[in-house]
Amino acid sequence: MKKTITFAKLKNVRLRDGVFGPRLEQWKRVTIPSVIEKTVETGRIDAFDLAWKEGMEKKPHYFWDSDVAKVMEGIAYDLALEKNDELEKLYDGWVKKICSAQQEDGYLNSCISSIEPEKRFTNLASKHELYCAGHLMEAAVAGYEELGKKELLECLCRYADYLCRTFGKEEGKRRGWPGHEEIELALAKLYKVTGKKSYLDLMRYFIDDRGTEPNFFLEEGAVRNMTIIRNQQAAEPVRDLAEAYGHAVRCVYLLCGMADLAGLDDDRTLFDACERLFRDITERKMYITGGIGSSFSGECFSCSYDLSNGSLMYAESCAAMGLALFVSRMFLLTGEGKYMDVLEKCLYNGILSGISFHGDKFFYTNYLEVDENLQTYNFGAKTRQEFFSCSCCPTSFARFLPQIGKFLYSIDEEKEEIRLNIPAANSAQLELAGKTVLLEVEGDYPYDGAVRIRIGSEEEFALRLRIPSWCRKYEVKLNGEKADFFLPKRKWRKGDEVELLLDMPPRFVYADSRVTGNCGRCAILRGPVVYALEELDQTCPVREMILDRSKALSIVPLPSSFPEGIRGAAIAGKAFREKRESASLYTEEPGVYEETNFLAVPYALWQNRGETNMAVWVRYMQK
Amino acid sequence: MKKTITFAKLKNVRLRDGVFGPRLEQWKRVTIPSVIEKTVETGRIDAFDLAWKEGMEKKPHYFWDSDVAKVMEGIAYDLALEKNDELEKLYDGWVKKICSAQQEDGYLNSCISSIEPEKRFTNLASKHELYCAGHLMEAAVAGYEELGKKELLECLCRYADYLCRTFGKEEGKRRGWPGHEEIELALAKLYKVTGKKSYLDLMRYFIDDRGTEPNFFLEEGAVRNMTIIRNQQAAEPVRDLAEAYGHAVRCVYLLCGMADLAGLDDDRTLFDACERLFRDITERKMYITGGIGSSFSGECFSCSYDLSNGSLMYAESCAAMGLALFVSRMFLLTGEGKYMDVLEKCLYNGILSGISFHGDKFFYTNYLEVDENLQTYNFGAKTRQEFFSCSCCPTSFARFLPQIGKFLYSIDEEKEEIRLNIPAANSAQLELAGKTVLLEVEGDYPYDGAVRIRIGSEEEFALRLRIPSWCRKYEVKLNGEKADFFLPKRKWRKGDEVELLLDMPPRFVYADSRVTGNCGRCAILRGPVVYALEELDQTCPVREMILDRSKALSIVPLPSSFPEGIRGAAIAGKAFREKRESASLYTEEPGVYEETNFLAVPYALWQNRGETNMAVWVRYMQK
Repeated sequence: MKKTITFAKLKNVRLRDGVFGPRLEQWKRVTIPSVIEKTVETGRIDAFDLAWKEGMEKKPHYFWDSDVAKVMEGIAYDLALEKNDELEKLYDGWVKKICSAQQEDGYLNSCISSIEPEKRFTNLASKHELYCAGHLMEAAVAGYEELGKKELLECLCRYADYLCRTFGKEEGKRRGWPGHEEIELALAKLYKVTGKKSYLDLMRYFIDDRGTEPNFFLEEGAVRNMTIIRNQQAAEPVRDLAEAYGHAVRCVYLLCGMADLAGLDDDRTLFDACERLFRDITERKMYITGGIGSSFSGECFSCSYDLSNGSLMYAESCAAMGLALFVSRMFLLTGEGKYMDVLEKCLYNGILSGISFHGDKFFYTNYLEVDENLQTYNFGAKTRQEFFSCSCCPTSFARFLPQIGKFLYSIDEEKEEIRLNIPAANSAQLELAGKTVLLEVEGDYPYDGAVRIRIGSEEEFALRLRIPSWCRKYEVKLNGEKADFFLPKRKWRKGDEVELLLDMPPRFVYADSRVTGNCGRCAILRGPVVYALEELDQTCPVREMILDRSKALSIVPLPSSFPEGIRGAAIAGKAFREKRESASLYTEEPGVYEETNFLAVPYALWQNRGETNMAVWVRYMQK
Repeated sequence: MKKTITFAKLKNVRLRDGVFGPRLEQWKRVTIPSVIEKTVETGRIDAFDLAWKEGMEKKPHYFWDSDVAKVMEGIAYDLALEKNDELEKLYDGWVKKICSAQQEDGYLNSCISSIEPEKRFTNLASKHELYCAGHLMEAAVAGYEELGKKELLECLCRYADYLCRTFGKEEGKRRGWPGHEEIELALAKLYKVTGKKSYLDLMRYFIDDRGTEPNFFLEEGAVRNMTIIRNQQAAEPVRDLAEAYGHAVRCVYLLCGMADLAGLDDDRTLFDACERLFRDITERKMYITGGIGSSFSGECFSCSYDLSNGSLMYAESCAAMGLALFVSRMFLLTGEGKYMDVLEKCLYNGILSGISFHGDKFFYTNYLEVDENLQTYNFGAKTRQEFFSCSCCPTSFARFLPQIGKFLYSIDEEKEEIRLNIPAANSAQLELAGKTVLLEVEGDYPYDGAVRIRIGSEEEFALRLRIPSWCRKYEVKLNGEKADFFLPKRKWRKGDEVELLLDMPPRFVYADSRVTGNCGRCAILRGPVVYALEELDQTCPVREMILDRSKALSIVPLPSSFPEGIRGAAIAGKAFREKRESASLYTEEPGVYEETNFLAVPYALWQNRGETNMAVWVRYMQK
């Protein structure tokens, strides 16, 4: 496994494209201030004062620390991208608060320490202590790596040291597994910045011991239900996992940790398990948008091919982000394009759909079909909400969105190679073997396949351009001369220009017929972007629309009804409306077909113009 | 409103047809013994000893009395249809047990009296006391009417007298509404057999006061949630109901009581409300099978046109039976065929689907589509179960099935007219204005449209044959001569023969396009029978099947795989299989169409050959 590839540093890539760019602006302007406000308002930050007493409002909840940590990770990225004294003051204040809640032995959890300090680690299956610890570690690493701040990192190292003393198979330690995986990947980060082998050991223990007999969760006794144990991927050792099951976010977080450990230990069996689950997820359990965890009940993976578009579906925003984090790790281990294809799919579709363009409203459930006549499960809101009771999705966006830029490039130190993974417009200043490489990427990707890459510094490196799997035809030119997607190591000159032309016609895509609800339906994609029909753009209800695949699709501007700042392209085509005159509930009238037009817009932009019916999978005329 | 029409007496119609006949045999041979066994085994009958103490097993539940009552109603019908000394002994013993639990003041409830006698009527919203009272009254009336037994009737009259003293708007009485409606229709029955006006008054009170301000359920305080109050049709006065909502069984039971009261009081506004809801249900909220209450969540009516076929759907067996009871009352009030059309639809489809042919397993949820790749909500079992924790559906079948025969005929005393509503083969001995009319109906309805009616007694009466709304062409002959469906009053001669020929081609039926999931799909019906494709009869997965409507459908024998005793006809036709060679989850391959055949079987017979995928609504080739 390769271990020399890394993604770009977050602050070294400035997004200037029409999709991520404006989202980042909204993230900075709206999302971050709003999650900060909610973190304060709901009592989450003051919980670290450990001053809550029975009878008071704002009782700390056992997942609160993770929300605070994710917001802090987001703030660290914000400060890394742009200096802001006021925000930094707030950040430093929060660090002090968090550190002040640390117990003498290193333990740190605002909820348990306030409410039931005697119950530390007594219900690992459900109480999320180790999950919170993991997110705090991630926040601490971000603060250190991006801002050079050590206070929180040292605090979390003390906590990690305490955990190392507490958990393990060695004499004097106790067994224990996280009920909600996350600390595994966090310990890998902590190990990488500190070099402390005990963190790697603890991570390895959590991964290797999980699911072995006797089952810790049964021994712990808080959970006796095998469904819940399966929900937590703890019914068998992780190397024996044959398929992805249980809570989707937990599953992909575990997979992140496993992939990290596979790389750190050069552990082939662990990598093979990751690869097996990657295939299971992407070949049987993933929406075309990159959404995963199709079952609302338990927020879980369902059986293979159960990918219904409405009603009981889930596809949580956090799960799509988790899948992106997992496949990005698999990419770093292998350099294989198939992982980048999935990452790109998640980024442009199933992740961005979860947040309103303005950055203030969120989906937990990312439906692929909404219709006023289709019920949804009670909690599957059909409109984006300002969630903040269980605020995992909003806080995930707070920390995930600013990281998108780093995925655009990967750097192979050994080969002195820069890869352009996703050619969205950006200015980059990349570090490669001590050199600084300046690159400007121009164009309107993913709404246009013509990309221009201008080299801004005279350094020696190879440049590899990704040809996405959806692309059937491409051209590369170097200073106007035909070239290959791989441009071997050379001494570049300032002003050198590489042109990449990805052929990007709109295309009809079909699902495996085992996806029952998609039989007779197609989706429209262009490049990596999945399109959807919002009813407000159509001449008739989406459910009556039958696409005419024999007529050409054309790329047209987005309707002007979209809020200012949204960029993108719509796709227009011909369709039939199937209509019955009879207004009776059941009729023998076979219906008539009227010719009409349809307009599809990027799925990730849906519901930014109010509530309307929507479908990604639409019927097509069969012959 | 007509009040002179009645249905035949239960014991006066002996079913000899191929659908109801064998079901009645199984009911007698299997269902009744099995529900008796479960009633004893689970402690439901011994609960009337009031001997349960904390710590003992088999803790009485507040709906248990209703189960016992429904089983007793079923036993009464069984005894009415055929003498059985042993069963009668058991029945009499149960009556004694029940009566022994009656309190001095008349109150009767095995659960409350055992567990919390001080809490009588303190939680009408949820505790089902009045619901249980209603079912016990129905059982008592059945025992009296069918068997001439008075003990239980007198016991329930004492209870009803107590309820009359307790509830009402008069000084000294308290307000109260049943949380689960049922007692309204039961009081109507009790009033009809006893003539006691106070029962009618109490019934009228329950109906008139329901939903008025101040809302009793809010005042009672056990329920503060308006969703639950709506669930119980108590958010507005019943005459103001604009649409059917809330718990479907409760709603149709309330409608039964309202229809009864409309008839008894000649109350037009009440009738109008019933008619409004009849239209709302049948024009917007009813499956093609007669199933209602499409929302699993709360077992409720959903919004208009939300009639999804799998996943979140419900269509409880009890609700289909309740709808049959409601429309049968509307028919008696008006004589209008539209109600009989719905009754017939329920009987042959949405009701019989709920019980296995062998009479021992039951659906709560009557799915219209089952596919191994489609998840269902946790409790929506895909296979029929031997339910007996909440056993409303099994016990509903126990009392409902034997009543089917009586719906076949209605009798208009005033006009001296006999109507043959459903021409299933039977032998009848009808009472009409003091005369006894013998009729033999022969044929294989609903699998054949040719029906022969032989008159067996020399009496004067008019005979009216129902022409179902699904029938486009029919013929009637009287002793070989062309005649009309209405045969005016005449003196019949023994041996007179009426032939009815209902044209009954298989037909494709479509749903209003607002039923999102049925767009592009059709159902196959023949006569009143809804058909379904079970995958085990097909050459390919049902989800890949596209029906070819341009080719003729043919009527063929049922596959031999059906258990012995099942009669019926299957429908064969041509179809295309849509196939993609690519095994990838998403592909651009447009697919190919292979010609194939399909076979459809009556929906009510599905899943009598093991688990298999099934669909009522199947895709069709568009042009």
